[in-house]
Amino acid sequence: MSGPVRLLGLDPGLQHTGWGLVESAGSRLRHLGDGVISTDADQPLAERLCTLHRALMVLLEQWRPDEAAVEHTYVNKNPGAALKLGQARGVVLLAPALAGIRVAEYQAMEVKRAVVGTGHAEKPQVEAMVRRLLPGATIRRSDAADALAVAICHAHHRGTRLAFARGYAPA
Amino acid sequence: MSGPVRLLGLDPGLQHTGWGLVESAGSRLRHLGDGVISTDADQPLAERLCTLHRALMVLLEQWRPDEAAVEHTYVNKNPGAALKLGQARGVVLLAPALAGIRVAEYQAMEVKRAVVGTGHAEKPQVEAMVRRLLPGATIRRSDAADALAVAICHAHHRGTRLAFARGYAPA
Repeated sequence: MSGPVRLLGLDPGLQHTGWGLVESAGSRLRHLGDGVISTDADQPLAERLCTLHRALMVLLEQWRPDEAAVEHTYVNKNPGAALKLGQARGVVLLAPALAGIRVAEYQAMEVKRAVVGTGHAEKPQVEAMVRRLLPGATIRRSDAADALAVAICHAHHRGTRLAFARGYAPA
Repeated sequence: MSGPVRLLGLDPGLQHTGWGLVESAGSRLRHLGDGVISTDADQPLAERLCTLHRALMVLLEQWRPDEAAVEHTYVNKNPGAALKLGQARGVVLLAPALAGIRVAEYQAMEVKRAVVGTGHAEKPQVEAMVRRLLPGATIRRSDAADALAVAICHAHHRGTRLAFARGYAPA
């Protein structure tokens, strides 16, 4: 059994980027922190991305996570919205990589399955389950709950992948 | 008349990001350098963004441009492609902002109009005109020519805006 690891989940957005940090030790999970990084819509785009980047670098420096995870965004909206989200997502993916931390990506269905048990869960179900899996944590913001869900998903799959690497049979 | 300024044009892409640097003094333009930053498609996305970011920061440190400009991408492709481009674009916009350099954005039509004289020019026309406006420069790559076109556009509009600020009547 390896020691506890700190896993950072991120939910990118230009307006609001959610983050959530959990400690994972074996099958135990512990909430360490969460929050939302917001940028000012009245600022030029490059300045907003700069604000987001700087806040992420401070976060990484303060909490020193071992690994990070981001949801692999499925975009069914218009291309303009996808471009906008992509710009924030690029900056969000960059920060842990610059800090030398690996960034895992998960499909939305994988996140739902890891947290709720089914890939077709609704958003409120996911959030309710995140709160149940991390008792004692006061999670105020929806974006932060989403980020914690990704961190939980990574805790789940990370263990499985380590088990695979050690030659255990898949479940 | 203000002194010469160094203007960096950028043409973002995850695979290839073009850059072009011109010196602008009054109505005179001089080619300083250009090139393409490429990333390895076999690498994880976060690593590719990291490569792009680091190359941009080295570029900014080496050339110390006064201002930067990026084309305001119009996306008529599918949302998946827009998300991918957006991720590179976010990282490209971030770098000059981190270096304390203002980033101007121009519509594709503005770039074409500034370089060729009409907003409906085709890509080869734009490239040919970039080569004519910057004599003596050997521009090998199409992405670099596109980036130089944005820099030329910024040189054009920047002058106009300065003129406006000083109270001259618009042309």
